[in-house]
Amino acid sequence: MTEQMQRIVLASRPDGEPTDDNFRLETVDLPQPGEGEVLVKSHYMSLDPYMRGRMDDAKSYAAPVPIGGTMEAGAVGEVIASNSPHFKPGDFAFGMLGWASHGCLPAKELRKLDPAQGPITAALGVLGMPGFTGWHGLTAYGRPEAGETLVVAAATGPVGSMVGQLAKLAGLRVVGIAGGADKCKLATETFGFDACLDHRAYADAKSLRKDLAEACPKGIDIYFENVGGKVLEAVLPLMNPHGRIPICGMIAWYNAGGLGAGASDVALTGPNIWRNILVKFLSVNGFIISNHFDRYPEFLKEVAPKVASGEIRFLEDIATGLENAPEAFRSLLKGGNTGKQIVKLI
Amino acid sequence: MTEQMQRIVLASRPDGEPTDDNFRLETVDLPQPGEGEVLVKSHYMSLDPYMRGRMDDAKSYAAPVPIGGTMEAGAVGEVIASNSPHFKPGDFAFGMLGWASHGCLPAKELRKLDPAQGPITAALGVLGMPGFTGWHGLTAYGRPEAGETLVVAAATGPVGSMVGQLAKLAGLRVVGIAGGADKCKLATETFGFDACLDHRAYADAKSLRKDLAEACPKGIDIYFENVGGKVLEAVLPLMNPHGRIPICGMIAWYNAGGLGAGASDVALTGPNIWRNILVKFLSVNGFIISNHFDRYPEFLKEVAPKVASGEIRFLEDIATGLENAPEAFRSLLKGGNTGKQIVKLI
Repeated sequence: MTEQMQRIVLASRPDGEPTDDNFRLETVDLPQPGEGEVLVKSHYMSLDPYMRGRMDDAKSYAAPVPIGGTMEAGAVGEVIASNSPHFKPGDFAFGMLGWASHGCLPAKELRKLDPAQGPITAALGVLGMPGFTGWHGLTAYGRPEAGETLVVAAATGPVGSMVGQLAKLAGLRVVGIAGGADKCKLATETFGFDACLDHRAYADAKSLRKDLAEACPKGIDIYFENVGGKVLEAVLPLMNPHGRIPICGMIAWYNAGGLGAGASDVALTGPNIWRNILVKFLSVNGFIISNHFDRYPEFLKEVAPKVASGEIRFLEDIATGLENAPEAFRSLLKGGNTGKQIVKLI
Repeated sequence: MTEQMQRIVLASRPDGEPTDDNFRLETVDLPQPGEGEVLVKSHYMSLDPYMRGRMDDAKSYAAPVPIGGTMEAGAVGEVIASNSPHFKPGDFAFGMLGWASHGCLPAKELRKLDPAQGPITAALGVLGMPGFTGWHGLTAYGRPEAGETLVVAAATGPVGSMVGQLAKLAGLRVVGIAGGADKCKLATETFGFDACLDHRAYADAKSLRKDLAEACPKGIDIYFENVGGKVLEAVLPLMNPHGRIPICGMIAWYNAGGLGAGASDVALTGPNIWRNILVKFLSVNGFIISNHFDRYPEFLKEVAPKVASGEIRFLEDIATGLENAPEAFRSLLKGGNTGKQIVKLI
C-alpha cells in the first residue's frame, strides 16, 4: 500500500474572516521525490498573517493560492527521502512545504538546519521570516538612532518583538501596542519594552492617541507598521519630522473585504495621510521580505548569536495537529496567539 | 521726508480660495539697515503655491504668516544701502524679501547674484527654489533609472518642467499632466516630454487613468507628486513595484479647507493608499526644500551649465505691480499661469 499524507487545500475564497468551509483536509498519496528533489516530513509549520492575503484573488505582490491548491506555509521537518546529493534522510530542513504533513521540493528551495544549534522552530520565527522581516524593515527603512522613539504594534508577535528588542539594543525608547494586559506585561517584562498599551482598552483612536502621546513624550520617530487601522490613526499625528514608517503588513484590514471599511478608518483619508507625509517629511516604505533574501546571511550573522545568548528573546504559541490549523489561523488574525504561532504536526 | 515702501500684509486668514479681503496693501517708511543688514529694492518677486499654506493657522512644517505680517516671498533686487562688508549698493541679491517693494535682511540671509550670468529672475525659478526642489526630489527620492517611466503634473511649471527635463536627460520616458491643450503642447514641444495629458479634459480620475495607462505602457516607476487630488487617484493603481513617490506639494488640496473634501478624493482612502505602498513596495518621501540647502551648490554646479547651454529650458509668466500680486496668486493656484509666476515690481 502506498504511503499517504495529509494536506489542507483552499476550498473556496473567504469573504472576510475565513470559515471552515474555506478549507478542506485531504488525504493523498505521498509523492516520490523526482530528480534533484527532496521529500520532507514536516514537524512544525508556521502560521502568518500574510496567508490571509494569499486566500484572496485580488492583485497583490504574490499570486493567490488557487482553489484546490495547498495553502502556503513555511515548515521545518526531517528529510525522509532524497534525490539530491545535498540532502540525506535524517537531515533537518526549512522550506515552503505548505499546510501539509509532508512536502516535496527541489533541494535548492530547502535550507538545511542544525538541530544542535537550537530548536528547529526558531527557523519559523525569531530566526526565520518574521524575525528577518523585523530586522530588515528596521535597518533598511527605520534607520534607528539612539535616543529616538519607536512604536510597534503586535508587540509580542515575532515581528514586533524582534523590532522592539533590536531598537532597545540600539538605544531607542520603545513603546509597544498589544492586545490585552497579559501581552503588554510580556512586552515590558520579557522583551524589555519601555511601555506597552493595550489597544483593546481604547474605544477609539483618539483615546489611544492620548495615552500614546504620554508614553512617547518626545514624539514618534519610527512607526513600524504591521497593523494599520486604529493604531495607525492614533500614531500618525504623533510622528516627528523626518519620521520613518516601514510597512510590512496591515493585519487590521486583512479581513475588511472592501479596504477602508470600518468606522475608525474615516479619519485616515488619503489626503490626510499624504499631508502628514509631506509636512513631516516622512519616509514611508512598503516591503515584502521575499525581495530581500540577499540580506538573510547578514541577518543570521548579526541576530543568531543574540538569540543564542538570550539577548534577544522569543515566544512561541504551539497548536497541535494539521486539522487544527484553520482554527489557529483564525485566532492568529484576531490576536489570539501569544508569540509566534506554530502548528506541531507530529 | 522719509522715503517710503509698499508691502502686502495678511489681513485675515482665507477660508478656501483667498479673496482681496485677505490682503492689505500698506505704505510704510523705508527701514534703515541695522548692523550687518542690507536694504534691497526688489525688482522681481516670486509667487509659489506653498504660500497658500502660510496663510493658514494649521500646524505645518513652517510657521504661518501672522495676521498683519508681510506675506512671505523670495525676491531678487538691487542693494540700495548696506551695513555689511559683504554687499555694496548696486549689487544684486536674492532673499526672502516678502511681498514688498523693498526688504531689509541680515547679509547672511541674502545670496549675491551676477546679472552677467543671465537674467536675475532665474534665481526665482529654474535656478531657484522651484528648480532646486525638482532636482533634489528627483535625485534624492526619485532615483531615476534609464528606461523607467516618470509622471509629473504641473508639467510646465518650474518644478514639473525641471523634473521632466532632468528625467529625459537621464533616459526616462516622461509623461506630463497639465491644465489645457496649450500647456500640453509646451510640455512636449518646449520641454521635450514624451507625452502630456490635459487633466481638464477628464471628468474623473478613472478616465484620466485610462489615457495615462496608454501613455505609460510599462507602468509608472516615479510619480513626482506636487498636486494630489484627481491626478494622484489616477496614478496610484498604475505604479510599478518598487516605485518611488517624492512629495513636494499637493496644490489640488490647498484650498480644500477640510482636507479630503471633494468627490474625486473618495477613492483615495487611507487604507487604499497604505495597501498600494505595501503591495507595490513603494517608497514615499515628503520633503521641503529648505531642509536641504546644503545641496544647493551641487544643484547649481550641475544644472546652471545646462540652463546656460539651453539643454534645460524654462518659462516665466510675469505679472506687473505689487498691487496685482493677490490676483496673480489666485490665478497661480488655479493653474492660470504658464511657467514660473513672477511679479515685476519696478
